[in-house]
Amino acid sequence: MTNRQVILAARPVGVPQESDFALVESPLPELGPDEVLVRAQWLSLDPYMRGRMSEARSYAKPTGIGEVMPGQVVGEVVESGDRRYVPGDLVVGQLGWQEHAVARGSALRKIDPRLAPAPAWLHVVGMTGLTAYFGLFDVCRPKPGDTVVVSAAAGAVGQVVGQLAKAAGCRTVGLAGGPEKVADLTGPYGYDVGIDYKADDVNAALKEACPAGIDIYFDNVGGALSETIFRRLAIGARVAICGQISQYNLAEPELAPRNLGFLIVFRARLEGFLVTDYSHRFEEGLTRLAGLLRDGRLQYREDVTDGLDHAPRAFIGLLNGENRGKALVRL
Amino acid sequence: MTNRQVILAARPVGVPQESDFALVESPLPELGPDEVLVRAQWLSLDPYMRGRMSEARSYAKPTGIGEVMPGQVVGEVVESGDRRYVPGDLVVGQLGWQEHAVARGSALRKIDPRLAPAPAWLHVVGMTGLTAYFGLFDVCRPKPGDTVVVSAAAGAVGQVVGQLAKAAGCRTVGLAGGPEKVADLTGPYGYDVGIDYKADDVNAALKEACPAGIDIYFDNVGGALSETIFRRLAIGARVAICGQISQYNLAEPELAPRNLGFLIVFRARLEGFLVTDYSHRFEEGLTRLAGLLRDGRLQYREDVTDGLDHAPRAFIGLLNGENRGKALVRL
Repeated sequence: MTNRQVILAARPVGVPQESDFALVESPLPELGPDEVLVRAQWLSLDPYMRGRMSEARSYAKPTGIGEVMPGQVVGEVVESGDRRYVPGDLVVGQLGWQEHAVARGSALRKIDPRLAPAPAWLHVVGMTGLTAYFGLFDVCRPKPGDTVVVSAAAGAVGQVVGQLAKAAGCRTVGLAGGPEKVADLTGPYGYDVGIDYKADDVNAALKEACPAGIDIYFDNVGGALSETIFRRLAIGARVAICGQISQYNLAEPELAPRNLGFLIVFRARLEGFLVTDYSHRFEEGLTRLAGLLRDGRLQYREDVTDGLDHAPRAFIGLLNGENRGKALVRL
Repeated sequence: MTNRQVILAARPVGVPQESDFALVESPLPELGPDEVLVRAQWLSLDPYMRGRMSEARSYAKPTGIGEVMPGQVVGEVVESGDRRYVPGDLVVGQLGWQEHAVARGSALRKIDPRLAPAPAWLHVVGMTGLTAYFGLFDVCRPKPGDTVVVSAAAGAVGQVVGQLAKAAGCRTVGLAGGPEKVADLTGPYGYDVGIDYKADDVNAALKEACPAGIDIYFDNVGGALSETIFRRLAIGARVAICGQISQYNLAEPELAPRNLGFLIVFRARLEGFLVTDYSHRFEEGLTRLAGLLRDGRLQYREDVTDGLDHAPRAFIGLLNGENRGKALVRL
């Protein structure tokens, strides 16, 4: 019995190429004590993976050349040396881009498909949902009536942020690229205003949508778009720096954070965060997210690619903004 | 009886010139009901005044051409239509660059020269001391053992920040330009390490001085120096954006805040603040600062220029970093 894996074949310079990945076959590892063999069903594709492909200093060690690409997976337990799991259990874990994985039981978490469909545990009731939850409520602290702007608002995190902010009594303004995504913003995701950053005059659109300024900006993109948004902050604004996808493929760093006087003018706060720092509160977040989902207050869209061999292509598409909804690979 | 005033004669482009100011004589205004006539003794010179000389959007309206330059003053009451004040009282207020001023009594505050010398009410027990106090304790929230880095550390705000941080049990690292100021850092201001940003390799010096990273950065300068400092933040770092003096004289905005991924890596927070937002707590701050001063735990240095006619030259020197200690004009 063999395993199929996608490994990092080369460190990309700029936008990753398919040749930076390789599909390899290998024997399944032996099951050690307390270990569990999982057959992957769903693989989550997320922008942070671009960071792991690079050697630049970051919050996590880079993936080595020849190592399996990192990624969250939902799968089924095939064999278990941990008495907490039995074959047939559905679990989620950081198992990487591969069809089978062996992991310690403590590195897995059981999921309940009656509470939410299996792939949803990779997003709306998983890491991207938790990212939206803690980023919005803990970092930005919304109050009813706040105007909340979200970039990459139709992405996996952004679609949840908008709906959570709406549930908290805020006005929501989303930015996305292209008419289909923008239609999703004011459609299923319930944004009050959707702005197409590729087609619209963003500054004019923001001025109209946020006449009293922006109280909260949830930043998934960084770069020139964020710079335009910063200019329209309100006094006391909070900005969560969640992602900077506009920067991930740059071979050379872009302009640096120098011209920060606007933070004084607006008495504003920029704060970066990582969802993993809130792991002690994941149960709280998942309970809330699952409740909203059950009550029909959390809509989502998935962008599904079939087959592990198409994962590199789908990941490159994600970095280019080609996905519509949460990027997933069905195995 | 005539008054002498320094007015804004022209909007500077880049570094202000003496010709951007004009010394004019005018009659003393009549005293209206509830008004107080004050003879200025000390004028505070502060970097924020550069912002008022410009028409760029900021947190306060620009000074108009022909209007008196703004500034905090300590002076003596000469005549009073407000029964809270009698001739001879010492007061502080936003009276501008002029030898006499008429103000409503509610815009003044009486000072007690037995608690601190008159000019100290313009700095260590005045606005710059309060800026240090609220910026450090409210924005940065220091804990004992934190490593605190301060730029413009020998300036009016920086000299207080370092001593307050030290009193709170922190390690303090100050940056200043030139050997005299750096000697003051580790001398009277009690910094653990002083770095000469003009002469030293700042990155190497910070690496040595802050082996576990920077927990708090109190930023008075912005620009390339701050960029170097950001690279050495610790996880969970707090950055107070207090001033951006490196930017104030730029005719064109410098590089913009784009490359903010480091905020995610360090889960760090940048926050701009204005001391005036804490006016409801000035009594608290002044009481603490006066207490530390009385106990000999707050050292300061003043850089005094004599005569209103020399104020423009002294102010230009302040923007160029030529002052050693708090810039004051004695009238």
